[in-house]
Amino acid sequence: MQPGNLSQLGRAAAPAASPDDAVLETVPYTRGDGPPAIVRFTCAEFTSLCPVTGQPDFAHIVIDYAPDARLVESKSLKLFLTSFRNHGAFHEDCTVMIARRVVEATKPLWLRIGGYWYPRGGIPIDVFWQTGPAPDGVYLPEQGVPPYRGRG
Amino acid sequence: MQPGNLSQLGRAAAPAASPDDAVLETVPYTRGDGPPAIVRFTCAEFTSLCPVTGQPDFAHIVIDYAPDARLVESKSLKLFLTSFRNHGAFHEDCTVMIARRVVEATKPLWLRIGGYWYPRGGIPIDVFWQTGPAPDGVYLPEQGVPPYRGRG
Amino acid sequence: MQPGNLSQLGRAAAPAASPDDAVLETVPYTRGDGPPAIVRFTCAEFTSLCPVTGQPDFAHIVIDYAPDARLVESKSLKLFLTSFRNHGAFHEDCTVMIARRVVEATKPLWLRIGGYWYPRGGIPIDVFWQTGPAPDGVYLPEQGVPPYRGRG
Amino acid sequence: MQPGNLSQLGRAAAPAASPDDAVLETVPYTRGDGPPAIVRFTCAEFTSLCPVTGQPDFAHIVIDYAPDARLVESKSLKLFLTSFRNHGAFHEDCTVMIARRVVEATKPLWLRIGGYWYPRGGIPIDVFWQTGPAPDGVYLPEQGVPPYRGRG
Amino acid sequence: MQPGNLSQLGRAAAPAASPDDAVLETVPYTRGDGPPAIVRFTCAEFTSLCPVTGQPDFAHIVIDYAPDARLVESKSLKLFLTSFRNHGAFHEDCTVMIARRVVEATKPLWLRIGGYWYPRGGIPIDVFWQTGPAPDGVYLPEQGVPPYRGRG
Amino acid sequence: MQPGNLSQLGRAAAPAASPDDAVLETVPYTRGDGPPAIVRFTCAEFTSLCPVTGQPDFAHIVIDYAPDARLVESKSLKLFLTSFRNHGAFHEDCTVMIARRVVEATKPLWLRIGGYWYPRGGIPIDVFWQTGPAPDGVYLPEQGVPPYRGRG
Amino acid sequence: MQPGNLSQLGRAAAPAASPDDAVLETVPYTRGDGPPAIVRFTCAEFTSLCPVTGQPDFAHIVIDYAPDARLVESKSLKLFLTSFRNHGAFHEDCTVMIARRVVEATKPLWLRIGGYWYPRGGIPIDVFWQTGPAPDGVYLPEQGVPPYRGRG
Amino acid sequence: MQPGNLSQLGRAAAPAASPDDAVLETVPYTRGDGPPAIVRFTCAEFTSLCPVTGQPDFAHIVIDYAPDARLVESKSLKLFLTSFRNHGAFHEDCTVMIARRVVEATKPLWLRIGGYWYPRGGIPIDVFWQTGPAPDGVYLPEQGVPPYRGRG
Amino acid sequence: MQPGNLSQLGRAAAPAASPDDAVLETVPYTRGDGPPAIVRFTCAEFTSLCPVTGQPDFAHIVIDYAPDARLVESKSLKLFLTSFRNHGAFHEDCTVMIARRVVEATKPLWLRIGGYWYPRGGIPIDVFWQTGPAPDGVYLPEQGVPPYRGRG
Amino acid sequence: MQPGNLSQLGRAAAPAASPDDAVLETVPYTRGDGPPAIVRFTCAEFTSLCPVTGQPDFAHIVIDYAPDARLVESKSLKLFLTSFRNHGAFHEDCTVMIARRVVEATKPLWLRIGGYWYPRGGIPIDVFWQTGPAPDGVYLPEQGVPPYRGRG
Ligand SMILES: [Ca+2]
Ligand SMILES: [Ca+2]
Ligand SMILES: [Ca+2]
Ligand SMILES: [Ca+2]
Ligand SMILES: [Ca+2]
Ligand SMILES: [Ca+2]
Ligand SMILES: [Ca+2]
Ligand SMILES: [Ca+2]
Ligand SMILES: [Ca+2]
Ligand SMILES: [Ca+2]
Ligand SMILES: [Ca+2]
Ligand SMILES: [Ca+2]
Ligand SMILES: [Ca+2]
Ligand SMILES: [Ca+2]
Ligand SMILES: [Ca+2]
Ligand SMILES: [Ca+2]
Repeated sequence: MQPGNLSQLGRAAAPAASPDDAVLETVPYTRGDGPPAIVRFTCAEFTSLCPVTGQPDFAHIVIDYAPDARLVESKSLKLFLTSFRNHGAFHEDCTVMIARRVVEATKPLWLRIGGYWYPRGGIPIDVFWQTGPAPDGVYLPEQGVPPYRGRG
Repeated sequence: MQPGNLSQLGRAAAPAASPDDAVLETVPYTRGDGPPAIVRFTCAEFTSLCPVTGQPDFAHIVIDYAPDARLVESKSLKLFLTSFRNHGAFHEDCTVMIARRVVEATKPLWLRIGGYWYPRGGIPIDVFWQTGPAPDGVYLPEQGVPPYRGRG
Repeated sequence: MQPGNLSQLGRAAAPAASPDDAVLETVPYTRGDGPPAIVRFTCAEFTSLCPVTGQPDFAHIVIDYAPDARLVESKSLKLFLTSFRNHGAFHEDCTVMIARRVVEATKPLWLRIGGYWYPRGGIPIDVFWQTGPAPDGVYLPEQGVPPYRGRG
Repeated sequence: MQPGNLSQLGRAAAPAASPDDAVLETVPYTRGDGPPAIVRFTCAEFTSLCPVTGQPDFAHIVIDYAPDARLVESKSLKLFLTSFRNHGAFHEDCTVMIARRVVEATKPLWLRIGGYWYPRGGIPIDVFWQTGPAPDGVYLPEQGVPPYRGRG
Repeated sequence: MQPGNLSQLGRAAAPAASPDDAVLETVPYTRGDGPPAIVRFTCAEFTSLCPVTGQPDFAHIVIDYAPDARLVESKSLKLFLTSFRNHGAFHEDCTVMIARRVVEATKPLWLRIGGYWYPRGGIPIDVFWQTGPAPDGVYLPEQGVPPYRGRG
Repeated sequence: MQPGNLSQLGRAAAPAASPDDAVLETVPYTRGDGPPAIVRFTCAEFTSLCPVTGQPDFAHIVIDYAPDARLVESKSLKLFLTSFRNHGAFHEDCTVMIARRVVEATKPLWLRIGGYWYPRGGIPIDVFWQTGPAPDGVYLPEQGVPPYRGRG
Repeated sequence: MQPGNLSQLGRAAAPAASPDDAVLETVPYTRGDGPPAIVRFTCAEFTSLCPVTGQPDFAHIVIDYAPDARLVESKSLKLFLTSFRNHGAFHEDCTVMIARRVVEATKPLWLRIGGYWYPRGGIPIDVFWQTGPAPDGVYLPEQGVPPYRGRG
Repeated sequence: MQPGNLSQLGRAAAPAASPDDAVLETVPYTRGDGPPAIVRFTCAEFTSLCPVTGQPDFAHIVIDYAPDARLVESKSLKLFLTSFRNHGAFHEDCTVMIARRVVEATKPLWLRIGGYWYPRGGIPIDVFWQTGPAPDGVYLPEQGVPPYRGRG
Repeated sequence: MQPGNLSQLGRAAAPAASPDDAVLETVPYTRGDGPPAIVRFTCAEFTSLCPVTGQPDFAHIVIDYAPDARLVESKSLKLFLTSFRNHGAFHEDCTVMIARRVVEATKPLWLRIGGYWYPRGGIPIDVFWQTGPAPDGVYLPEQGVPPYRGRG
Repeated sequence: MQPGNLSQLGRAAAPAASPDDAVLETVPYTRGDGPPAIVRFTCAEFTSLCPVTGQPDFAHIVIDYAPDARLVESKSLKLFLTSFRNHGAFHEDCTVMIARRVVEATKPLWLRIGGYWYPRGGIPIDVFWQTGPAPDGVYLPEQGVPPYRGRG
């Protein structure tokens, strides 16, 4: 993996004003022999806005992917996720949109996302999506986010 | 997802007097490419009545579904679940009835429910039901509700 | 401890329509030598109504007390707690009201309550109250209800 | 589900003196469309006797079954489990015997039991049995009883 | 507790643009006999900005207080906490500022805050402050937020 | 500690038919310099009968004591606890009775008991008692039995 | 299951000096209809010696097997495991040797072992082995031993 | 809190070669009314060298302090902790040395450290030190690092 | 701390045949200003013999002490603990004997031990002892060993 | 397994200066009948350097493999892992490189690695790789490393 000519890594980079403005940068990646590697990012610090009320929503986001020829650069991923801070979207759409943007940028062999949203009206919503069945022969443990408990 | 003309979202809406009176509202949903998304609702605040003794029953309810052309609107789901508050039903029937009503309203690709009832006579009952095997290619983590422990 | 002439124990007893209508029954209790015993009730199945919106509220309630000459009869306690099902009250008032009713009925040496309410607007409220410092020489472990976690 | 003419539900019923004397009562059950429902009973309060030493044994018992035309009535299940209190049996036999009795009474589509026995000589024994592979298309989460830890 | 003439409760209220613009509303409260009650708010969804880099910071906030003559109205508390979303402040200052604003608004007998900030540079910071020792005779369990673990 | 002439240790000993018939045997103990040692017994396998319904009750029992000149012999303690199997008593009475019998047999410097009973009617009862404040200078960790959780 | 003529059960039996000297006793077992039962033994108290340094090693051992015509008698299993106390063997060999001895003694349909060794040089070693894929149609939950955590 | 003229914050700063070479930078801090705030840093990523064998040691470090007129700047704290990477010291000395350096740099009202070292020879060592009893009136929760478990 | 002339550190040292033969080596220690440091050793790998039956006993041992002028050398502590492998002693005696030997060797300001023994007859015994109240002004977190759970 | 002529086992061996200089030693291994054994190493103490910033990175590493004719010698594995201490590599490359080196040294039937890296920028990265699907008929439990939680 060679860092290449990235615009965000190792510099003071401000988050984009919206997901549309954010750039997901990538670095070249060379797969060796054997099945693909799986890379997991866990973002416990995600927030966006409710498109109806404008109130903040929060989520815990886990992304698993099998890179092909490009890795997502992790700092640009963070800035991309930060760009949802003032973006309004329903939980279902927002979660899948994140996934599709990483797919678009890295053209991976496969990608999975789990969005674990904080409760609204006492009922949390989780959204799970993947591009298809996981590639053959990979190791892919469960995301393992604990279920919502309520109290007691 | 467009909110459309919903009667309950963003308004002060009283729960219906019974599940029969409750309306599960939906919003249009457009699936993109790839396998279906899975959406999970967790309701830790469910209560109904025992049909024999009239005493309150409590449950922790988890619903997983793969929406097709319609999403269940989450506020109307909450009001629907609240409508069981004065409804008497056995655990087995009540759990499956919730599932069938969501199926009827959203005509999903697939739906699963887990009803984790609080102990009666020292023995909790869990009820699991789904419309069939999960669709191919989806990500569907375990519901992961901890087993009943008793004391110690 | 002698069961005495209770109206609810061992019979099919319906919950009262409101806390005002509910009767907390007691049984005589003879303290032996030494410091008082502490008795803890844990009710994981409490529900009342929001006095502003009429929506259901849920709580996990823990009551610790040091009985003097009377024990609260546990079935009548359960029916008393059930009587809040259609009662509207703020979390702070409701929690302390439960405590004061048990005090009134049993005239204990001391009583403590913890009300651990399910989140509203994403923020759970806990309410703690006791009649005073615990009596000297008793064993009184922490209530130990896990803190609210959100997701992740 | 209709309660029917049960002898134990809603009455003061004494446990039978032995499993042979205990009656497992059932109620009619009508399966709807789709795969079978799975029903789980968790009994954290089981005790029997060691057939060699006569000393008490304790176990945590989990029963999963897919009812066909009859449900086991839960109070009679409890009384049946209580009837082992003075019954001597090895862990392996006792666990499977419970399962076979429920099978005999309800003729389910499928049944699984897990018996998680408390340690003897520092070594706990778990016994797992089922009538065959689970039916196609059902949801059947792991029983999830934590492994024995020892100390530390 | 009487709701009184609140501007935010039960209406669609937008969060203020900054903590300075936010109004913490209160409702009258009448203490009964005995030691003060303690009320705990847990906000798992707090975010502000780093004053140096402008990057988002996240925290889990727990507030314990002993109300005297006024309760903080919980919806206005939520909107107040939301108003930090575009506010830049160091962890130490931000945590104590929240506490002082609740003190200013409610003039409680006593108040404690714990701010549990997500890691930066691999090192999370927690900030604890209170107005003084807790009042005599109250029940005040530990906030009990789990320590940061890293991985493994 | 010398085993002495015990009737139960190292032999096949049947549990007594009732607590009255059970003998708590002791062995001589010589305290050395310094504060007393604390000894904790944890019995996760306790069962007795409800004095009203005759149904089995279950509890998790923890006993802490500071021996003076005699230790309770652990096998006789086990047989003593087993002797409650057919004994009917209320939770409050039963827990304290166990404690008083160990006090009577060993005349310890101090003793504490925690009885953590399995739920009845959905509400577990815990009973705590001790002979007085713990002796000065001892180490006495919390009993640490997890609180009752219900489901979810 | 009939106890038969065992030399160790119900008697004071000393552990053998080495695994070679230890005798694994069995009792006859009659399988009923249906798939095999699975029996799990958990030994949290295993110790052997490092063959290089002679220092003690410790392990947590879990054995799952599907008995055919003979059950391993649990007391002789305990004595067999105890016979490793002065035996030197590498983790890999020792774990599999235990498994093969139980296979030899009971000729089961299938057997699995997990040996979870305490860390040496900061790195714990786990060893897993089984005689082949589990028999069709059995229930076989994960051994579920928590992963090594280090500190924090 | 004003960042002031710091040499490390917001720049690419290399860790010092040794603790002696590392500079702990501070920022001015103004305490308001009331008892001191407590600030906790948790470093789950600490490593140094064994002074006897030269092998790496690892620890989880928790620092609590009550700042007076200066806060430790968190990036310089991280670089200071990183400077132990090639430093040899016994656990006891290393833990206390960290504490004394933070005391020297910030002259706090009070400071506590807990060093939770990974096991060597199967036995982890924890080291706890503080400058004295905590100041009056502060809130100071337990560090709460889980005890070492071994396996199982 | 200077390693000095130790006979066991950094060499292949065999455990002694009995605690009497084992030598607890120490290294000089210089306390700095302020309250004493507390050092905790956790040994999850302790085994001895039952003095009555000769069967192995296992324990999890935690030692806290406040060193004065000498530290216990940790490798010799490990060898000392290993020397109990063939030593028969009751739990109460064995736990306190370990503590007294460390006191004798290091003459600390204070020492505490917790011995958490694995269950025998289903009942684990814990033994706690310390030389007196902890010194003033030290930080001494709870040993925090989880309580025995049984099953479920 | 025979130790053979190893250069590092049982001697004071210094870690190599880089992974290239480190030697992974092996010992001969003879597989018996049946499916391969699986061996798991867990290293909770791994550190390397960021190739861009030179700052330390930390990871929790789990390696599962099915040895064929050679076992990796565990002390040389530890020294190999230690050799990354001054080595700069991206998480993805570093994790897979460890795996490939163990494959190269032992030519196993199969190997899996999980690298669980501590968070950078608030987002931890996990990397999973294996040489192919696990061999038929083995037992291979999940690595089970808990997911990253953030705070709360
Ligand atoms: Ca899995
Ligand atoms: Ca609950
Ligand atoms: Ca799964
Ligand atoms: Ca406490
Ligand atoms: Ca969170
Ligand atoms: Ca599963
Ligand atoms: Ca242990
Ligand atoms: Ca406390
Ligand atoms: Ca404590
Ligand atoms: Ca599984
Ligand atoms: Ca760690
Ligand atoms: Ca505390
Ligand atoms: Ca263990
Ligand atoms: Ca404490
Ligand atoms: Ca239990
Ligand atoms: Ca698995």
